[in-house]
Order: sequence, then C-alpha cells, then structure tokens
Amino acid sequence: MNNTWWVPGGPIFFYTGNEGVIEAFAENSGFMWDIAPEFNALLIFAEHRYYGESLPFNGNYSKDPHKLGYLSSEEALADFAELISFLKATIPGADKSPVIAFGGSYGGMLAAWFRMKYPNICAGAIAASAPVAQFTSPCDAFGRIVTSDFTAAAPNGTCSQTIRSSWAALDRVADKANNTGLDWLNSKWKLCTPLTSKSNMTGLKDYLSNLWTNLAMMDYPYPTTFLAPLPGNPVNAACSKMLGNYSTDEELLSHIYSGVSVYSNYTGQSTCLNIAEEDNIGADMWYYQACSEMVMPFCYDGVNDMFESKGWDLEQFSKDCKETWGVEPRPNMANLIYGGRDVSSASNIIFSNGLLDPWSSGSILKSYGSIVSIKIPEGAHHLDLRGSNPLDPVSVVSARKMERKYIRKWIKQSNAVEKSRRYNFNKS
Amino acid sequence: MNNTWWVPGGPIFFYTGNEGVIEAFAENSGFMWDIAPEFNALLIFAEHRYYGESLPFNGNYSKDPHKLGYLSSEEALADFAELISFLKATIPGADKSPVIAFGGSYGGMLAAWFRMKYPNICAGAIAASAPVAQFTSPCDAFGRIVTSDFTAAAPNGTCSQTIRSSWAALDRVADKANNTGLDWLNSKWKLCTPLTSKSNMTGLKDYLSNLWTNLAMMDYPYPTTFLAPLPGNPVNAACSKMLGNYSTDEELLSHIYSGVSVYSNYTGQSTCLNIAEEDNIGADMWYYQACSEMVMPFCYDGVNDMFESKGWDLEQFSKDCKETWGVEPRPNMANLIYGGRDVSSASNIIFSNGLLDPWSSGSILKSYGSIVSIKIPEGAHHLDLRGSNPLDPVSVVSARKMERKYIRKWIKQSNAVEKSRRYNFNKS
Repeated sequence: MNNTWWVPGGPIFFYTGNEGVIEAFAENSGFMWDIAPEFNALLIFAEHRYYGESLPFNGNYSKDPHKLGYLSSEEALADFAELISFLKATIPGADKSPVIAFGGSYGGMLAAWFRMKYPNICAGAIAASAPVAQFTSPCDAFGRIVTSDFTAAAPNGTCSQTIRSSWAALDRVADKANNTGLDWLNSKWKLCTPLTSKSNMTGLKDYLSNLWTNLAMMDYPYPTTFLAPLPGNPVNAACSKMLGNYSTDEELLSHIYSGVSVYSNYTGQSTCLNIAEEDNIGADMWYYQACSEMVMPFCYDGVNDMFESKGWDLEQFSKDCKETWGVEPRPNMANLIYGGRDVSSASNIIFSNGLLDPWSSGSILKSYGSIVSIKIPEGAHHLDLRGSNPLDPVSVVSARKMERKYIRKWIKQSNAVEKSRRYNFNKS
Repeated sequence: MNNTWWVPGGPIFFYTGNEGVIEAFAENSGFMWDIAPEFNALLIFAEHRYYGESLPFNGNYSKDPHKLGYLSSEEALADFAELISFLKATIPGADKSPVIAFGGSYGGMLAAWFRMKYPNICAGAIAASAPVAQFTSPCDAFGRIVTSDFTAAAPNGTCSQTIRSSWAALDRVADKANNTGLDWLNSKWKLCTPLTSKSNMTGLKDYLSNLWTNLAMMDYPYPTTFLAPLPGNPVNAACSKMLGNYSTDEELLSHIYSGVSVYSNYTGQSTCLNIAEEDNIGADMWYYQACSEMVMPFCYDGVNDMFESKGWDLEQFSKDCKETWGVEPRPNMANLIYGGRDVSSASNIIFSNGLLDPWSSGSILKSYGSIVSIKIPEGAHHLDLRGSNPLDPVSVVSARKMERKYIRKWIKQSNAVEKSRRYNFNKS
C-alpha cells in the first residue's frame, strides 16, 4: 500500500497480483505510480495466494491436492474482493472510492476477470498483455511471434535462422563419440551441471526455448531487471552477438552461447550457466495452475517458427501433471468460467498489447463497446504498465494517454452510480 | 429435459434449480412449457446440488463443514455452466444454441447471477421474484408486505389486526393455571404434538409466522399445490374464515385456527395440525445456505406489521448457526460476490416482481439499461413463471408478453455474436 498521493474519496488503484512475489510487480508497474498524483489515488498491490509471502499451510503443500486445491484464479479474485471490502471498511474516506484494477500478463487476466466477475467492486480494468484467450488460441501463434522478433533483429532473418539451426546442431554434438561433443559443450557453455548423456539435452533445450521467449517478452527499449537483468532492446543485443558466419556446429553453438549470455549473464557475475535457474519473480506454483485450470496449449513446427518442432500433446501433459501435482488438467475450465475471447458482455476493460510480445496472440485485439483494445506495435510484454522512460516509443506514450482517459471516465461513471445510489437510498 | 418442441439450433431454456427437488420447479414453471413451441426451445431443469436427488456424500453430511462446504450458490452456478457445456457438446444441433436462464425466488437469483457471472454461457435471464438485494434490504419491509396483503383482504384491516392480536392471546392462554389454556389449545387446534409448557409456544409461533408468509407468497388467483395444496386467492380464503367478532382469547384463537386450516389442511385429509411439517419441496438444506452465505436479515415490530415484535439479532443467529451446522455466517458475502442491488454493470436480465409478494422488497424494482424491472401489482411469488391460466390478472399476461419479447431479442443478439465469431474465425 502506498498513500503518498491519496486524497480521501479518491480512487483506489489496485494491482491484481499474479504468479510471483508482489514486490516484483510493484517495482515493474511504474505507470500506476506515475499517474497516482494526477488521480489522488491510493495504491494497493495485492499478492496472489500461494506466492511470495502469501502461503497457506505454511507453504508446505507436499503435492497434496487437498492443500493445492485452494490455489486457483477464482479464489484469488475472491481474495481481492475481500481485501477491497476490508480496506474500504477500515481506511477513512475509502468507503466510496472507485476501484480501478491493473495487471500485466496473468495479473492482467485477473484484472480483466475481476472487472467481469465483480463489477460491483471494480469500476474498470487495465489488462496489459493479458492472454485471456490463450486457452483456445491456435497453439502455434505464440512461437511465431517470438520468432518474428528475432527475425526482425538482424538482416535477412539470420538471427532466427541461427537459432532454428541450433537444435539439430545440439543433437549432433551430443551424438559425438566418447562424449567428446558433450564435453566440449559443458566446457564452452560453462554449464554448472555438466551434461552426461544425450538425454540431458531435453532440459537444456527447454531452458533455451524459455530463454528466447523471455527475451522477446522482455524486449524493452531500456535496461530492466524483471525476469532477469537485461540490457535495453535485449533481442537486438542477443542477435548482435550471434551475427557471425559459422561453418561447424561448434561455431554455431559458440554464437548461440554468446546470445544466451545476454540473458543468463548480463551482469557478468555468473561463473557458470545454470539451466535450472528460476526466474526472478518466484513463479514456481504457476506450474500447478497450468496443470489445473490454466491449461495453455503451445506447439512449434520449426518452419514457421525457430523452435524445435513439438506438437501439443494433452495426453502426455496430463500424465506429467498427474505425476507432478496429483491433478488432472481441466483444459476447458478457464474458457468455461471466463469466456475466453468472448468479452462481448463485459464493460470497462482496456486490453493493451505490445505486438512484440508473443502473448498478444492470446489476447483481445478487437474493441467491443467499452472493451477497448490498444495495440502497441513497438511494445513488449506489458510495456505500458512500466513507468515512463525517455526511450519509450511514441505508441506506448499514446497508449498510456488513452488509458488515463478511460480511467478518468470509469471513475466518473462510478462516482455517478454511487451518488444516484445514495440519492435513492435517502428517498426510500 | 424435454425436447418435444426442440428444433436443432433453437434456444435452450434452462431452469436454474433452487432449494428443492427439481420436479417441484418443473411443475410450477408452466411459462417455460407454454412458450417452448413458439421458440423451438429445448427445456432443461437443472437440480441444485444438495437437493432432491443431487446429493453428494450419499446425502450424509453429519453437519460436517468439510462436507457441507461444497454447498453454495457459486458451486451451483458452476454446476450449471458445466452441465450446459456438456449438453452443448453432446446434443446434436445444440452447440451454438443461445441459453436463456429462468428461475423463481432463489432460482431467480441464480438465473440473474448466472447471466452476471457467465455471460459467455447465458444470453439472458428471467429472474422472477428474485430477492438479490434481500441481504441489505431494510429488514422490516418483508413483514410489512405480508401484512398489507392480509390488511387488504378484509374490510378495515380486520384480518391483519386479528393476526396481530393473536400472539398475545396465545401467551395469555399458555399462562392459564394448571395448563388449562394449553389443554384447550391442544384440543381445539388438534395439535399432533401437544404443547406441554409455555416454552413450546416459540415453535408454534414460528410455524404461524411462516404460514402467514407462505400464504402471501402463494396468493395465486387459482388453486395451486406448490408449497402446499391451496385454494385460489388463499389470503382472502384464510381471512374470510377469520372474519367474525370475538370477545375472548379462545374465540380469537378459534378464528385463527380456521384461517390456519386453509393452509394446513385445505385437502381436509389431515387429522391433526403438525407444526413440524416441512414444505412440499424438500428445502431442508436451505437453512445451511442461510447460515453460511445467504444471510437474510428479517425483523418485525408488531405495529407496522402483524407479526410478533422481533429484532434482527445477528449474534444470536450466528450462535444458532454455529450450533446447528458448525458454520459461522458471513453476512456480507452475498453482497460482496453478487453486488446486491447494484446491477448497473449487468445486462439482459428481467427482474419481475409480484407486488403481493413480500420478496419484492429485496428485488430490483428499477430498470437500468438492459436490466428490466417488471412489476405485477396483482401477482404473488413468481406468478409470471407459472403457466397461463384463465384467472390470470392482466398485469401478468402483459409481463409474460414483455418477457417473450426480450427473450426473442436476447436470442437474436446471441445468434449475431455467434455468427460474427464464426466469421472472424474463418477470416483469421
């Protein structure tokens, strides 16, 4: 909570916390801080249950569905409703304050859904890079967007082509007799945990796929420290390290390693490459959510995208979830509860999307009534939620301007409804 | 399910079952059956979990919160969503069918909330006599409406005055020495379980309060058999039995007994008056719901209403709930989740209310945008949901006409959205 700019009666700007420690989102949502003075707003960042310090059962779930079962988006939304009700009852001057929800990514989904399911509590929502339709989006769109970011970052698409070629190169190196290839890789890539057989390659490839994806998501025009410390325009930075020609697999993989280091070791402080390293935000429990109600299909073909070809295999996915968490995924649940792309009956939500961001494929890219879609061509993952920066592209500056305009409108609407309610109450 | 009039592609008329066996609602919702042919509609009546035959844990809850905790309106709504998803996936020609929700009383609340929370699944709702704001409605309004029905049913308000006088008369009779008063009452009123001390009087008074209330709710213009077998205009029928003058408490209570018999023994088949008798619909588990999330405050003053004076005592209520069910009531929960009277962000719901019905005090009596409030001055509890009858007042005939008009509109809207979705899908 921050009440530096709060004036009693002013609005509450409420961040619907996503999968991670709430500080990570508070520190990377400068937009809310930037505009709080102009709106006399109270800032609240609400941590999502099962993340950060908000751990039921003392954080010990033992993969027990009877304990994990309370981790769901619906319960999180109900937490937010309860919290707001508590704040309004206890903070002097907040009882009639309009609440505007803000969130990015899964937090943006929660912001949108909070407005949809609790319009009595939330006057409007800024849902930045919120892939509410990722559950039914074509599974291949995501990888294609990541790829196009890398394609654009070097002449003739050489950067994405280099990455595309790396998967087979890794296999060939791993196949070399007497582990000579793996030994070379362990040493050249400074792997913290050396690979000892070709079967270890899956973990490395998963790590790489996530890394390229994260680079695309975090492709901000200035240095940031969200999922990892990164330079500005990190996709360009990584691609510029992978430019040179190569004639052997080892040369190719040396380029790749240079690109990887932009993400894995931008600070220069890592002594080895840890492919088991978590992101900065503490999102471990997300894998349970993805295994229960937030089932998002992804697939890659290696032709239209730069990833290793991999279909979406719900059966295998379910088997893995059962094994890891003891739960059966419910792939249709999120759409059933929230409606996916069908937001035609909702109101007062801005869905903003940076078009560099692969998650834009699962978001709302069309406006309907008071559902407003804002596209930010030069934007990565919820760039608009970040604080203002001299390096911001014009598109995000005008997106934020539009968002402020709508926030002002929603607050006015909400105050009018509140006023008419008081009037009617006094009459009766 | 009834598919007599179903034409594939036509709408699904979905009754959101309330607290009772679903047959009771199917048999008392003739409106849906009457209009199904005109709309080529499929009729579905969905039973609410924990009622009728829809009993988890084999119907054995042992007042155990770990078993009872799954009984809630939210879970019921999710059941409906799942059921519809299943029906659409399995009934040929139903996959794109617009769903219109219907319900009366708590079922009407569920119909309205279903549209509010699942607009992706439900195109519109007929919420008949749905007291969605009963949780914060002034607690005394309910009793005053019951009273005004009885006041209007006899000249000079003598009927409600007789009832108002009966509470003290019962006390005086119970106070008579050597139980002579109670003996007289046991014999005159043919009580199945004779009263043996004045403390038994509370149960008898509760029975009577409910009975007068039920008579007002069921004040239909023709004979019905919903909560109990009743003549047409049962409030008038009861009052006409209580018309005569009286000069003693015994005379007064004899009149009262004649009025009571209109409800308790309209068929003439009861040999004694059973004050422990349940309603016809099997609503026992409602008391758990009222003790957890559906906390409805009622109070009476005995001056502006005809009931014995009794304030709303949340503390005592909570104590009783704790004792009976092991749960602590959450009096603000329903409003928090559903918004109470604030339906300003919802759409496509008709709230219809008979003004003879005490529950109208907790419903929506004002229209907002596509939230339409219909008042039926001569109507009792969800009269409009009943089948057409030659004795119907004009007001209910025109209410049903309006409802049909809106249902047609919502179906058209829903088909248009579905069509544009298909079009966009084919384009992309």
